Amino acid sequence: MSRDQAFTDAARTLGHSFDGEIKAGGNYVPLVRVGDTIHVSGQVPRVADVVVVTGRVGAEVTLERARHAAQVCAMRALALLQRSLGSLEKIRALPKVNVYVQSADDFTQQSEVADAASALLLAVLGPAGAHARTSVGVYQLPKNAAVELDLVAIAEAEAD
Amino acid sequence: MSRDQAFTDAARTLGHSFDGEIKAGGNYVPLVRVGDTIHVSGQVPRVADVVVVTGRVGAEVTLERARHAAQVCAMRALALLQRSLGSLEKIRALPKVNVYVQSADDFTQQSEVADAASALLLAVLGPAGAHARTSVGVYQLPKNAAVELDLVAIAEAEAD
Amino acid sequence: MSRDQAFTDAARTLGHSFDGEIKAGGNYVPLVRVGDTIHVSGQVPRVADVVVVTGRVGAEVTLERARHAAQVCAMRALALLQRSLGSLEKIRALPKVNVYVQSADDFTQQSEVADAASALLLAVLGPAGAHARTSVGVYQLPKNAAVELDLVAIAEAEAD
Repeated sequence: MSRDQAFTDAARTLGHSFDGEIKAGGNYVPLVRVGDTIHVSGQVPRVADVVVVTGRVGAEVTLERARHAAQVCAMRALALLQRSLGSLEKIRALPKVNVYVQSADDFTQQSEVADAASALLLAVLGPAGAHARTSVGVYQLPKNAAVELDLVAIAEAEAD
Repeated sequence: MSRDQAFTDAARTLGHSFDGEIKAGGNYVPLVRVGDTIHVSGQVPRVADVVVVTGRVGAEVTLERARHAAQVCAMRALALLQRSLGSLEKIRALPKVNVYVQSADDFTQQSEVADAASALLLAVLGPAGAHARTSVGVYQLPKNAAVELDLVAIAEAEAD
Repeated sequence: MSRDQAFTDAARTLGHSFDGEIKAGGNYVPLVRVGDTIHVSGQVPRVADVVVVTGRVGAEVTLERARHAAQVCAMRALALLQRSLGSLEKIRALPKVNVYVQSADDFTQQSEVADAASALLLAVLGPAGAHARTSVGVYQLPKNAAVELDLVAIAEAEAD
């Protein structure tokens, strides 16, 4: 199965569409490519114009919902890469993923939240999706999002 | 107008001078260049020896003051790049900016804070300043700073 | 003294062994190398299976213990690089280190915590260990760790 098909299947499983425009919410851009290195901006779990999981994980947000939020963030990052590159097949590597979890003061399962995003990235990209990761528990996130995720991807070198 | 002139103008508008030495406060360096990639250390809104905006945004710090703080952080990063490269004209791209906002527990406008820094970077650097961005709300920052910002810049390749 | 010897000496001084396996705790990998750039995943101060410093710095964790934690995180990152490269002599540069400190709401000495890790990295790697750094105070960390650290290293180019 192609990565793009795996992406479509993952969207269906999550119950969300990522076909619409994914805008940056200010004076920045969704991603920047320099050479083969692509930095993707921090993604919150927004679908169309709605942040689908808001609040503090471990208090008003369950671990299960936070994992869903992390997956939506990862799908948005993949959607941006797919549009920029034409196909997810053009991703050579995914060296780093950062996951920020808006946490209750006694919530220490940030890794378990991030792991849902990591599993999705591996499921869609296969071995090229193997990544280093940092996950931390932050105090607040834009739009009261429960999770935010950014990443660095490496594209296949362009033909001369 | 040159980028260096735009930088000087921005400093005047902010009402701060960035002519003094910008030191790293410990066993690290303000920036590291490897090849054409430059990592700039996290900058707090310090002018000379004073952190000019301290406290928690959304509580004792207003959105307006936090945006000012974000701009001071961005100016410090630009000042470091200017000194290292000789001129801001030598910046080819600005792939990633990270903004950390010391936030009150119900403050969710981290993007609006970060956006002031982003606008300044674009105003000074023009299209080369287009960047991916992540902004999060943290619990505390060094020196009780309201905002901290770091970035990755790409320099023009050096002539052989 | 070789860097690998300096690493061994630092482990003895800290009173911990870093000889065991250092696993990633989920669907990610400890580090990813693409070209000469290596991203190391966020390291908590775990020795074998125990996180040796947990809790909020400035409340139940002293500055001194937090600095110890930061050093353990740095040693784990070095241990991963040593295994991947065969020797720490293969590290050409260390452009960026990020330090996340689980902080009490009035604790503002994140730089002082991070500085212990920075000093250790310089002691082991020498001038190649000079790095840009960002340190922030977060609300929670995985496993209730007091500190988390990640970094980007540059390896010597491989012979063709």
